[in-house]
Amino acid sequence: MPSSPPTTTPAEASKPLFWGVDVGGTNIKFGLVDDSGKTLHFDHIPTQESEGPQAAVDRTAAVLAKVQRDLGFSNADVPMIGLGTPGSMDIPRGYLLDPPNLPHWWNFPIRDAFAQATQRPVAFINDANAAAYGEFWVGTGQRQDSMVLLTLGTGVGGGVVVADELIDGANSFGGECGHLIVDPSPTARLCVWGGGRGQLEAYASASAVVDRTRERLTAGGTSSLSGLLGGSNSELSAKAVYLAAEQGDAMALEIVDETAFWLGIGITSIVHVIDPGLVVLGGAMDFGGETSPVGQRFLEGIRKEFHARTFAHVAKGTEIGFASLGGDAGYLGSAGFARKVYSKRMP
Amino acid sequence: MPSSPPTTTPAEASKPLFWGVDVGGTNIKFGLVDDSGKTLHFDHIPTQESEGPQAAVDRTAAVLAKVQRDLGFSNADVPMIGLGTPGSMDIPRGYLLDPPNLPHWWNFPIRDAFAQATQRPVAFINDANAAAYGEFWVGTGQRQDSMVLLTLGTGVGGGVVVADELIDGANSFGGECGHLIVDPSPTARLCVWGGGRGQLEAYASASAVVDRTRERLTAGGTSSLSGLLGGSNSELSAKAVYLAAEQGDAMALEIVDETAFWLGIGITSIVHVIDPGLVVLGGAMDFGGETSPVGQRFLEGIRKEFHARTFAHVAKGTEIGFASLGGDAGYLGSAGFARKVYSKRMP
Repeated sequence: MPSSPPTTTPAEASKPLFWGVDVGGTNIKFGLVDDSGKTLHFDHIPTQESEGPQAAVDRTAAVLAKVQRDLGFSNADVPMIGLGTPGSMDIPRGYLLDPPNLPHWWNFPIRDAFAQATQRPVAFINDANAAAYGEFWVGTGQRQDSMVLLTLGTGVGGGVVVADELIDGANSFGGECGHLIVDPSPTARLCVWGGGRGQLEAYASASAVVDRTRERLTAGGTSSLSGLLGGSNSELSAKAVYLAAEQGDAMALEIVDETAFWLGIGITSIVHVIDPGLVVLGGAMDFGGETSPVGQRFLEGIRKEFHARTFAHVAKGTEIGFASLGGDAGYLGSAGFARKVYSKRMP
Repeated sequence: MPSSPPTTTPAEASKPLFWGVDVGGTNIKFGLVDDSGKTLHFDHIPTQESEGPQAAVDRTAAVLAKVQRDLGFSNADVPMIGLGTPGSMDIPRGYLLDPPNLPHWWNFPIRDAFAQATQRPVAFINDANAAAYGEFWVGTGQRQDSMVLLTLGTGVGGGVVVADELIDGANSFGGECGHLIVDPSPTARLCVWGGGRGQLEAYASASAVVDRTRERLTAGGTSSLSGLLGGSNSELSAKAVYLAAEQGDAMALEIVDETAFWLGIGITSIVHVIDPGLVVLGGAMDFGGETSPVGQRFLEGIRKEFHARTFAHVAKGTEIGFASLGGDAGYLGSAGFARKVYSKRMP
């Protein structure tokens, strides 16, 4: 269960402050965050994707300016803005390339447009990397040196922090762990994005959980979930699988265990490349999270598979757990990233 | 074909200088390297593993002192020493843990013993990471920001450099890419180290090439390699497979292509975690390297599999090629790492 991030008041905030903006296909979330990671203000506006990026940039900039003014702060108090967006993107050039959930925003210089509209320098970051940095700064990854976040939702996103630095990658593709290969066979599951087979997200995303459950039901498996088979996709959901598992439904528990197996494979590969010491699971699909017996079984299944495939001292020195910031990780991480970029620029 | 590293003379060397020491199970290699990566002196002594680590440390320190004196340099000219050893190791504590090829050296505080014997601070580094840093500093990775080296030999080693920094890892296990999972099935090939299945090195090491060839021959496949089947392991080698492939032997070419397939899978996973922009293949098993048609076919096979499994802009922005320093990468990287640590400590 994600906890609310710590908050503070305008009078008690430690300056400088940073805006963290988290652009999604449906909403744009934004928070004003102080130098110690406490939130002064949080809200969201609809993305209105089809109106194009400039309109959304202008609306967001207007709201940020108003909130800032209402709280009694000037641009000098808020010297930099962190902007997280879905990929694909070209971080050095500040461009959105072709993000699937923002089809009217392709090939748009969003960083500079946002800097122009807000009259502030903008630190540009991938949204999943922002979430990872948020967990690293003020969430589960606090007091760590390195960390990987895997977000389990429609797909599997990821972000990698090593020695306090986010890994953007040479092609702005760092941390896209959902696309690592867990099954090389020519009949492996197809990826959500359709272009390939065998990627982690074809096995461990919420969509994959639904697909795998539907396949078992269609093949005649018995389960309390059978009643959802005739319905639309939204009735047979990862949440429904979790709830059935909580009631002891055998097929649902098998699906949970299978998902853990595939995450164990993927996490083994991640750890054997960068050995981060901590792997955190975030996103909507957590099978109840750490307070649920099913969530605990899920975590234990992942650990078991990983431990069977790594060395004893690596198993002992690697924590696997749930994220703590929920949907707030994105704006917090964008703000934290702006803070980091800003502090590097200062003499 | 690895080229010889650039050299210089004592009179023309740019100071400070750094010793790079590369400890292996058979030999200890050492080179005196100047600030621009040029080698003034290179040699090796036998490891004499069974005499234990302190004896080897003392012999090495004596040789370094003599060479340094003979060349006319003082300890002030050579302010730091880079020491690369095989894992497992505990880098923060400076210990060798239980390296398989140094069985009499387990649980030894080699960094401090070496510092004591040489009267110099020692920068301690994993040998595969050292090789990666060597290629990054003065080899194939020059002018890059990030790089991954995979060394194909008895096993598959690796080293990861991101944004000019080596990734040691939380458990001194960073860059152990040979252990990432390429085949999750319960019947996947067993690893060289015996503890698990499906790791990259069970498919793409020289040992795996030999094993896979032997299995095909035993199963009745016809090949010019059949004559080597009755012989000892050393007759049926990865080199023999390469030579048969050069003659157009169909089975040998299939083995080359299969090896490329598995490396393509592994490299896809590596790239989708850290997106390094450059992946370099080093080690003894290169199927002739870049000057050989078989080596080129090997590279093309790897690229083809990777390109089929990644996004167009990532494929375009990721180079895959051969390393250039051969067996010199280790001492050069150890020296380069010492140089890096030293420059960070300077005001």
